[in-house]
Amino acid sequence: MSVVFPRGFVASGVASGIKSGGRLDLSFTGFGGSAVGSGAAVFTQSLSAAAPVSVSREHLAATGGRLRGVIASSGNANALNGGVGVEAARAMAAMAAREFGGVPEEYLVMATGLIGIPFPLDAALSGGAALRAAAASTEEAGLLAARAIMTTDTHPKLAVRERDGWRIGGMAKGAAMIAPNMATMLSLITTDVLLDPEQAASVLAAAVSTSFNRITIDGCTSTNDTVVLLASGIAGPPGVGFEEALGEVAGSLAYQIVADAEGGSKVGKIVVTGAPSDGEADAIARKVANSLLVKCSLLGADPYWGRVLGEVGLAGVAIDPAAVDISYQGVKVARGGLEARGELDSGTLELLAERMQEHDIEVLIEINQGEGTATMLTSDIGHGYLEENRGTS
Amino acid sequence: MSVVFPRGFVASGVASGIKSGGRLDLSFTGFGGSAVGSGAAVFTQSLSAAAPVSVSREHLAATGGRLRGVIASSGNANALNGGVGVEAARAMAAMAAREFGGVPEEYLVMATGLIGIPFPLDAALSGGAALRAAAASTEEAGLLAARAIMTTDTHPKLAVRERDGWRIGGMAKGAAMIAPNMATMLSLITTDVLLDPEQAASVLAAAVSTSFNRITIDGCTSTNDTVVLLASGIAGPPGVGFEEALGEVAGSLAYQIVADAEGGSKVGKIVVTGAPSDGEADAIARKVANSLLVKCSLLGADPYWGRVLGEVGLAGVAIDPAAVDISYQGVKVARGGLEARGELDSGTLELLAERMQEHDIEVLIEINQGEGTATMLTSDIGHGYLEENRGTS
Repeated sequence: MSVVFPRGFVASGVASGIKSGGRLDLSFTGFGGSAVGSGAAVFTQSLSAAAPVSVSREHLAATGGRLRGVIASSGNANALNGGVGVEAARAMAAMAAREFGGVPEEYLVMATGLIGIPFPLDAALSGGAALRAAAASTEEAGLLAARAIMTTDTHPKLAVRERDGWRIGGMAKGAAMIAPNMATMLSLITTDVLLDPEQAASVLAAAVSTSFNRITIDGCTSTNDTVVLLASGIAGPPGVGFEEALGEVAGSLAYQIVADAEGGSKVGKIVVTGAPSDGEADAIARKVANSLLVKCSLLGADPYWGRVLGEVGLAGVAIDPAAVDISYQGVKVARGGLEARGELDSGTLELLAERMQEHDIEVLIEINQGEGTATMLTSDIGHGYLEENRGTS
Repeated sequence: MSVVFPRGFVASGVASGIKSGGRLDLSFTGFGGSAVGSGAAVFTQSLSAAAPVSVSREHLAATGGRLRGVIASSGNANALNGGVGVEAARAMAAMAAREFGGVPEEYLVMATGLIGIPFPLDAALSGGAALRAAAASTEEAGLLAARAIMTTDTHPKLAVRERDGWRIGGMAKGAAMIAPNMATMLSLITTDVLLDPEQAASVLAAAVSTSFNRITIDGCTSTNDTVVLLASGIAGPPGVGFEEALGEVAGSLAYQIVADAEGGSKVGKIVVTGAPSDGEADAIARKVANSLLVKCSLLGADPYWGRVLGEVGLAGVAIDPAAVDISYQGVKVARGGLEARGELDSGTLELLAERMQEHDIEVLIEINQGEGTATMLTSDIGHGYLEENRGTS
């Protein structure tokens, strides 16, 4: 059901010709009719942010977060295209306003695909009428909207939650590792609770901080990364557990992105406890999660704690490595910074070897020097990543 | 000739049994006889620094840099081995003192190999007598000393310079990408000029800052990285051009390390000009050089400036990407942050395609917003890296 699971939304996905071969490449999600709701977004931190990001920022500022919808496209990121690219992004919002009502500033724009290539605006605009005609609140419409933002994702990423009278739905496209030249992370989450734009921005920031901001695939941030929250308000004020449920939806989508990192076969959950502070735990978790050597160990299902501790020592955090314990899949393989597998009986060692073959690998790093904690999700790195990223053609 | 090219040095390399199969694994370089000279070293910044690093730091402090030599071994890094590892590193220095004279504190210790595995001290010590017996000032002895510090390097890395009456020689082992679990970067540079230990530390720091500190292979810093300078003093005070020549030797060794990154096929020279400051140029150059996507582009010989500019925008430096020009191999492919290949004639485009097939690829990033400059050397990333780093066995 994805983005149309909450009440008050329509969605659609069509093939406009941005991509070749009749593949889905244009996606709309909004309130439909004459409805205006609240919206908020979190964008890439890149100074080289793409035109859709800068135009969406303008539109949020102009409307104060009172929005009608989001127009998204895939196949071309419209990034690093200068003023022409900005005009193209504005034209996409104007097309959405023509088809779905209101003014261009009431629409946000998202795009994903190759960067530095002129945006095929005519093709994209030609899909507007079909996008409007297909807009609906059906499961099929929601699925097509999610498929139309995919690039090298192998499947659409969807998540929903429902509690006492209110709903949340979300879709995402990931940084599939086989082609991070088009590796933008886009997500759109909808809800029918009533939020003013400031509330929407606040709850979205909190949800992103524990989900999309806690994953890494290749350490490369896109020019286009965008996460949007739209709230229709139909279900009234958020009840107990709304923020938790929103975090669950964002967390599920973020996990799905890492799990669909093509060329990869594992999800590594890096858990740091006992750091001097949460911020220092975060620095350690990120250093380990981004390590190419740790990713290679995941590829090989090797519980090589030495690499992990090596990275811990380089995280820029003043801790004593000689106090650190490291466990893989719940089995402690290093204690006090030293090899500890000698303490284990053969049954436990066999269990560890077996559990290293699982898809999800938990690496627990107990710093034992405070109360700070952090978690990161990472993927392994595979041969497909290298092959697909050799060139742009 | 390597480390015995300057006058006043002996060297040797033997197989002690740290490695299996009779491979060279124990290396000595020193002044020989009863001579004491000056020494200085630059070590890894890792908090998880290996025992040989911590013991060498102690010995430099204890002697004020008045040294007799360096004992180095390969096959086991003696890292993350706790107090037992520190005692083993001290025992290596004591063995050097027994064989070559003086006290243990007059020797530095270097090691490279797997981390977190108990150091085979008995095997290493058993090679001491042979190491002394083989010590000589011959080309053969210098070559064996360089080969005995290799792990997965495909060839020894050597460099020499000679000017008006003085000489510099150096050897290094690299972070061969196929096995960065043993990817320590070790280098030993010798000279026959007269330097006091403070001078040695000063000129070495300057040389390292423009060479070994300007290369990256996988962004992973070793627990054991060490660069040592030994000065015999026989040729008298350093003449004009000494520091320049020392920088050239260090630069040549650093280049050889990147060029021998196995699993890789290219050396990328990332040159940043026109940044607001040298420090900001450095941050940009490092961000680009460490980018997995840029490394994949090098593997594919693809002049994909979009990836480069994407990384520039993420370097944490406040610059305007819309002012940046990017050239590959001297051909400007982006101007003012936009694709510029349309300005080129077909002959120039053909030349660019041809020159992208070369081994050394220069990526020039003109920020056009100041006078700051920086250069980094990086390798591409290949399939061998993934395969060889899957596991430790």
